Amino acid sequence: MSAVPVWSVDPRTGNPREQVAAEATAEEVDRAVRSAHAVRDALADRVARAAFLRAAAELLEESGEHIIEAADAETALGPARLTGELARTAAQFRAFAEVVDEGAYLDVHIDHPDASRTPPWPDLRRYKIPLGVVAVYAASNFPLAFSVPGGDTASALAAGCPVVVKAHPDHPATSELCASVLRRAAARTGLPEDVLTVVHGFDAGVELIRHPLVSAAGFTGSVRGGRALFDAAAARPVPIPFHGELGSLNPVVVTAAAAAERAGEIGTGLGGSMTLGAGQFCTKPGFVLVPEGAAGDQLLKTLTETVSSTGSGVLLDHRMRDAFVTGVRERAALPGVDAPVTPGAAGEHTVSAGFLTVPAARLTADGPHDALLEECFGPVTVIARYTSVDEIAAVLARLPGNLTATLQTATDETRDPDAGPLLAALTPLAGRILVNGWPTGVAVAPAQHHGGPYPATTSASTSVGATAIERWLRPVTYQSTPETLLPPELREDNPLGLPRRVDGRRA
Amino acid sequence: MSAVPVWSVDPRTGNPREQVAAEATAEEVDRAVRSAHAVRDALADRVARAAFLRAAAELLEESGEHIIEAADAETALGPARLTGELARTAAQFRAFAEVVDEGAYLDVHIDHPDASRTPPWPDLRRYKIPLGVVAVYAASNFPLAFSVPGGDTASALAAGCPVVVKAHPDHPATSELCASVLRRAAARTGLPEDVLTVVHGFDAGVELIRHPLVSAAGFTGSVRGGRALFDAAAARPVPIPFHGELGSLNPVVVTAAAAAERAGEIGTGLGGSMTLGAGQFCTKPGFVLVPEGAAGDQLLKTLTETVSSTGSGVLLDHRMRDAFVTGVRERAALPGVDAPVTPGAAGEHTVSAGFLTVPAARLTADGPHDALLEECFGPVTVIARYTSVDEIAAVLARLPGNLTATLQTATDETRDPDAGPLLAALTPLAGRILVNGWPTGVAVAPAQHHGGPYPATTSASTSVGATAIERWLRPVTYQSTPETLLPPELREDNPLGLPRRVDGRRA
Repeated sequence: MSAVPVWSVDPRTGNPREQVAAEATAEEVDRAVRSAHAVRDALADRVARAAFLRAAAELLEESGEHIIEAADAETALGPARLTGELARTAAQFRAFAEVVDEGAYLDVHIDHPDASRTPPWPDLRRYKIPLGVVAVYAASNFPLAFSVPGGDTASALAAGCPVVVKAHPDHPATSELCASVLRRAAARTGLPEDVLTVVHGFDAGVELIRHPLVSAAGFTGSVRGGRALFDAAAARPVPIPFHGELGSLNPVVVTAAAAAERAGEIGTGLGGSMTLGAGQFCTKPGFVLVPEGAAGDQLLKTLTETVSSTGSGVLLDHRMRDAFVTGVRERAALPGVDAPVTPGAAGEHTVSAGFLTVPAARLTADGPHDALLEECFGPVTVIARYTSVDEIAAVLARLPGNLTATLQTATDETRDPDAGPLLAALTPLAGRILVNGWPTGVAVAPAQHHGGPYPATTSASTSVGATAIERWLRPVTYQSTPETLLPPELREDNPLGLPRRVDGRRA
Repeated sequence: MSAVPVWSVDPRTGNPREQVAAEATAEEVDRAVRSAHAVRDALADRVARAAFLRAAAELLEESGEHIIEAADAETALGPARLTGELARTAAQFRAFAEVVDEGAYLDVHIDHPDASRTPPWPDLRRYKIPLGVVAVYAASNFPLAFSVPGGDTASALAAGCPVVVKAHPDHPATSELCASVLRRAAARTGLPEDVLTVVHGFDAGVELIRHPLVSAAGFTGSVRGGRALFDAAAARPVPIPFHGELGSLNPVVVTAAAAAERAGEIGTGLGGSMTLGAGQFCTKPGFVLVPEGAAGDQLLKTLTETVSSTGSGVLLDHRMRDAFVTGVRERAALPGVDAPVTPGAAGEHTVSAGFLTVPAARLTADGPHDALLEECFGPVTVIARYTSVDEIAAVLARLPGNLTATLQTATDETRDPDAGPLLAALTPLAGRILVNGWPTGVAVAPAQHHGGPYPATTSASTSVGATAIERWLRPVTYQSTPETLLPPELREDNPLGLPRRVDGRRA
């Protein structure tokens, strides 16, 4: 059987650009995982690991021009956005190098023997160790920050886990280029190159999740693809953690007071956020509750102006374009749904942004309108017009889990009677709650949480920010173990200067 | 259809004692979960929750005599052991009250706006919130500490999650009694009694894991039962975390130097640990690598004396007794297996302790001997005699995941050349590593980890110790949220005095 070629395709024309690789066979996936597993001990040295992460940041920046050129050619995301994404990607590696340096993620606990306890305590010392080889499934919409050199990869390497990335078919050339940069960074810092490998192909992705030496997986993508891999991870003889970010509607609630006070500002902000990157952000506000009445009408008027003046855009690939056009058409055809600005096909390769409206009352019970409560990837949002706070609550109760939920209140929120109750109603729905902001844009910060109730994520973890490292570790406790046999992280004199808890208190 | 009665049975005679309840119908399970869900907000108050946990400890102690009497009558574990277990159970509640008081488990992170970051940071504030209703599946072998008033229940309540316990059929009377005590403790501290409910019956357990308002589950039991529930949790339309402790062989490696120096001490210690509680601990050392030769022979001689002098015991129920007798018989019949002290049936209702031996070389490849690498619940252990450290490594490579792994070294471990390499080989196999101790006995301490690679647990979590609370929480981040709308845990002036990280540093 001859190898299945992997082509880089130009989404602006639909034409193939170049053949960049071949799909990995089962044997090649096995070899990649075994090679990664074989070099895992090389990642045990925290100093070398931090140096590697910093070298990765540096070399990504050095190769920035080539990377951005390749990424733009096969994603059409544009140099400006990709320049920002590259900077973010490099910053992520540096942030995880700092996490490794500080060592709080090791979660060191030491309890000295205490005969007064029930039952008595022996000497117990716990820290966290890497899980093993991590499989990363790259996202379509972030060819850098959520792909080969993305947050899953950076956090797994930071944890001490070798990584095998299943590249996304929308940017195989970028994936190959980034993989070579990361492997070069490993070599430069004295680590084996096989701490990171890339494989291509759908079947390779399935082989990967089933491989007995794969210990955990990270995924960013669709509900359908993510759920299939989640199911495969759970069905293994030895199940493994599957941290998937699957899909999110990112609801926004505009209070009556907010609409009355600043309809125009909210309409403009919403229009900007929902069309950013052609609506291809996982945090795109895809569902907005707006009051019926004049203030809400004014909001929609501004939204109409903003969205109408947005140029047509190229989606990441033609399959997504077809799904967008079909998804919008199906939703627009539902009874009671209007399209003040009709989203859909523009030119042969482009789409235009738009939005749909529906009375919120249509969404309070099961029915065909449920499609409006499902993510539609691309530059469209659904505006549900409500007549009462009770109606908002009834609609929110029907929403699936989300990455984000946003509340737009009066500028002086203390004079907005609905603000408090609605914030409380939104909190169970999402992992990040915003007030008077927009959810697109995800800061890489320790307090960040990019995750949420299913299907936003398949676990309680975050894929962005310092605590993303927690996904790739497991605790181990040493009991009554002599100093000479303890890892340095757990020795009494704390030779590595780690933050720790001793006898239940911070030390 | 009339209700299916639930009987309390005396394992010492096999006779039913009394009918204590009826199996819960699907409607009753639904009602229990909905009642728990309805009262979840009452648990939001940390002060009330801590008071409730302390009242639970106090009332369990007050009712100690009745509880121990009931538990002994239906488990045959004996008053001494059950008195200790009750003290441990009460201590667990108090330990979790302290965890709630301190608030470190909320993992508060605050990042102030910082325009110099890539991309810029907005104001981000994260803490952890309860997941919702938790289903707890009680263990057979700990009618208190891992059952209705056990660590799963205490940690879930401490997290702010209402609990529905599926009682174990081996101790329904104890379960009912403990549930009434816990509900009384709730009422005494002003909380609704429905923060804890008990249901009985196999079908009720299945209904429970599938219920849409159940948000997470804890389980302690067999690989078969645990895996079935894990699979059901993963197959839900909205999958939920399933923290199951399923089974563990708890390997012990005795180095040549250890055997040469203190064969007798190790033989005696092993005999005591493996027969403790009639071998019904999940941390029972079930597989021991002992060197061939005179020192190892001496160890077995002492083990023989210790085990032979152990009286016969009553297992928790007759199904377990049958499984033990069959399991031992099958293993003993394998070629090359000897039974220096034959374990198996003693009287009509009792079993006697014993152990099997096998050359380690028999275990280095797939085959019928694999049964020796699977847990056999009850007072039996398998001694594999090795001829080289390489042979140890080859056997360890075939072991499934474990709660514990134990190394017996020379008293001066620096003079034991095998100690370091073997400790490194044992670490990947377990969640708790012991040196020159015995794994039975699990301290309730912050540095404890009672969990391990599958099948020891189905997640990277612990079911014992302070960090067990992490299983029932998820992070939520508030972005750019005005002080007046923030929960007190995240306000700038820290009104609750919580430990937190601010701008990436401890504060």
